[in-house]
Amino acid sequence: MREVYVAGIGITSFTRLEYPLVEIAAYPAMMALQDSGLKKVDHVFVANMASGRINHQTGLASAVVDNLSLTPAGAETIENGPASGASAIKAGFMAVASGLHDVVLVTGAERLREVNNLDATDAVATLTHPLAEYIYGVTLPSLAGMFTRLYMKKYGVTSRHLAMVAVKNHDNAMLNPFAHIHQKITLEGIIDSPEAMTNNPMVADPIRFFDCCPVSDGAACLILTTKEVAQKSGHPLVRLAGVGQATDTHAVHDREDPTELLAVRGAAAQAFKMAGVKPSDVDVAELHDAFTILEIVESEEVGFFKKGEGHLALERGETRLGGRIPINTSGGLKAKGHPVGATGVGQAHEIVQQLRGEAGKRQVKDAKTGFTCNFGGFGNNVVCLTFVREG
Amino acid sequence: MREVYVAGIGITSFTRLEYPLVEIAAYPAMMALQDSGLKKVDHVFVANMASGRINHQTGLASAVVDNLSLTPAGAETIENGPASGASAIKAGFMAVASGLHDVVLVTGAERLREVNNLDATDAVATLTHPLAEYIYGVTLPSLAGMFTRLYMKKYGVTSRHLAMVAVKNHDNAMLNPFAHIHQKITLEGIIDSPEAMTNNPMVADPIRFFDCCPVSDGAACLILTTKEVAQKSGHPLVRLAGVGQATDTHAVHDREDPTELLAVRGAAAQAFKMAGVKPSDVDVAELHDAFTILEIVESEEVGFFKKGEGHLALERGETRLGGRIPINTSGGLKAKGHPVGATGVGQAHEIVQQLRGEAGKRQVKDAKTGFTCNFGGFGNNVVCLTFVREG
Repeated sequence: MREVYVAGIGITSFTRLEYPLVEIAAYPAMMALQDSGLKKVDHVFVANMASGRINHQTGLASAVVDNLSLTPAGAETIENGPASGASAIKAGFMAVASGLHDVVLVTGAERLREVNNLDATDAVATLTHPLAEYIYGVTLPSLAGMFTRLYMKKYGVTSRHLAMVAVKNHDNAMLNPFAHIHQKITLEGIIDSPEAMTNNPMVADPIRFFDCCPVSDGAACLILTTKEVAQKSGHPLVRLAGVGQATDTHAVHDREDPTELLAVRGAAAQAFKMAGVKPSDVDVAELHDAFTILEIVESEEVGFFKKGEGHLALERGETRLGGRIPINTSGGLKAKGHPVGATGVGQAHEIVQQLRGEAGKRQVKDAKTGFTCNFGGFGNNVVCLTFVREG
Repeated sequence: MREVYVAGIGITSFTRLEYPLVEIAAYPAMMALQDSGLKKVDHVFVANMASGRINHQTGLASAVVDNLSLTPAGAETIENGPASGASAIKAGFMAVASGLHDVVLVTGAERLREVNNLDATDAVATLTHPLAEYIYGVTLPSLAGMFTRLYMKKYGVTSRHLAMVAVKNHDNAMLNPFAHIHQKITLEGIIDSPEAMTNNPMVADPIRFFDCCPVSDGAACLILTTKEVAQKSGHPLVRLAGVGQATDTHAVHDREDPTELLAVRGAAAQAFKMAGVKPSDVDVAELHDAFTILEIVESEEVGFFKKGEGHLALERGETRLGGRIPINTSGGLKAKGHPVGATGVGQAHEIVQQLRGEAGKRQVKDAKTGFTCNFGGFGNNVVCLTFVREG
């Protein structure tokens, strides 16, 4: 299996974007091409979840290739719900690793704010089980609410712990010019005062407003290639060293213990094994905090902390910038934003910036090993990636 | 690059199917698993175009894995318009060729008839250029109409030639129990008589009713794996020997000469080169006859006949069962049906049946080399595959 490297990266602001989806998808691709110094690519993967429904567009990948004047390069759209981005990176990995293609451009893009937030929430809810969940009005926030309640009961996580995730990730987003939400929040403002209950209203008990990620538009791009080609880009060499993926039952209630995220555990274990690194080797990680509880639980399931102890590590500041293992330095889905198909590629973008030493004020000192966890469905299809700086 | 083989196949009838989409997708997968003797797969690719819009379902691949009890195997949905099926096969090829996965299940599925034909036509039209085509009311039949007119003018193709494609493919479909349309038609009935103009009304001048494929539901599945695993299935060994793909401009009017299908030419050339075979080596082919004109033009662009001479070869009976190079023995999209995401996998299913010698009354004697052309967009993203029987 041929080794796979990152030659170029690009990203848009995650925000509300009033451009056609194809242009949103193409923009960071142009940045990534410039960043890599490459002019020609052999294949394009576009990660997107909802364009057929929300943007009235299919064949998005063909549109992107045309917009970028990259014809006759082949192209596909890859959809795996909120994990579409990392799934597209995995596809890019296989394309290069197999030897079929030498230079593969992976761009994730979504334009959800073409519709209102309720329609966007409904569009995302179509990834739940159609007969056992969706028709009963289940949405992602409602699943996250029930999940949070179970986790609180079992492990003593409190609403204050959830708020700590939000505060930390908003702090990080203040240092990220591409983040959706540049708003400093405090524990006092969102949990520790009587006004907090007004500032931070209930969404799906016990989940409050500041426990949820925003609905974002945006796109991010990675160019994957061989070592030889990547070396010519002049950037520090970053290798996509590990790729892991696992699925779990479609309906959450089918799981023996719904507080166990087996797909996260399985995908992370594979991504670490392939890369030959341990969770304790990771210097910086992006976890899929669509809801604050998920950052805590994923930090346990991927192996950074023992099961049930993620909130304690958070409390001790271990996941902050400057902590033992900074998590979501980009601001995470919580504050950087969550343009669904772009999210997984955006996570990888942050890690590559960190490993290259290009993360500015949010740089993790001498980061050498990075990790991403992109969470599809409500944990029914998870993709984890391990990146390693060489040299 | 590791060689890739077909271990199992399965298909539903292409017709109107009143089942949930996930069950439609899973059904041929169960047939393919049984056909292969395998119980475990490492990864699943689902080809689908329109589920987000038409069936109110995303994350279809995760749903299929769950339905088949194949968790924790990873899974993605692959979308490339009408070429989604062959694109998913290409993804499966890369997964096995790279060594990342040993057994990959590729199932293509679509349930278009959940909505009426006009809505289905509109859903498919969303693959056209959103700003240069779609907003002006362009649909696939209208593009095919304009394309046919140009081709008639340039090469002398007549409405009677188009009708010959329809008659041949309806004849073939009569021999295929899984085909959508089991209706014998004649040149007299659809073109050569005064009544024909009533039987076969104009759809998009010069394209008539019997020049268009039906709107179908259906699914088809292929299991791709290594030689070692495939050998255990007990079937004649069929290798996926060549994979080619090329894109062209998104808007058809951007092409220097719209009668040249450069993406077909490019994709076919790659698929032949990788397999080390020539067009003249092909014993049986499935071409993408969503409209009758396309079978004629693709038969030229892939290299079976000289440019502008496909209709003459058709006239001579060379593409009939028993002819020099039988095309669309399955009935083609025209009469077997066109459940968009399933179509490319269905084409491969037919070729594997032919190469195994399992095609019953439509068997091409001693077929050893087979070829498929899956046409995405209006020729803006084309995937061709070459299959070879070994031993």
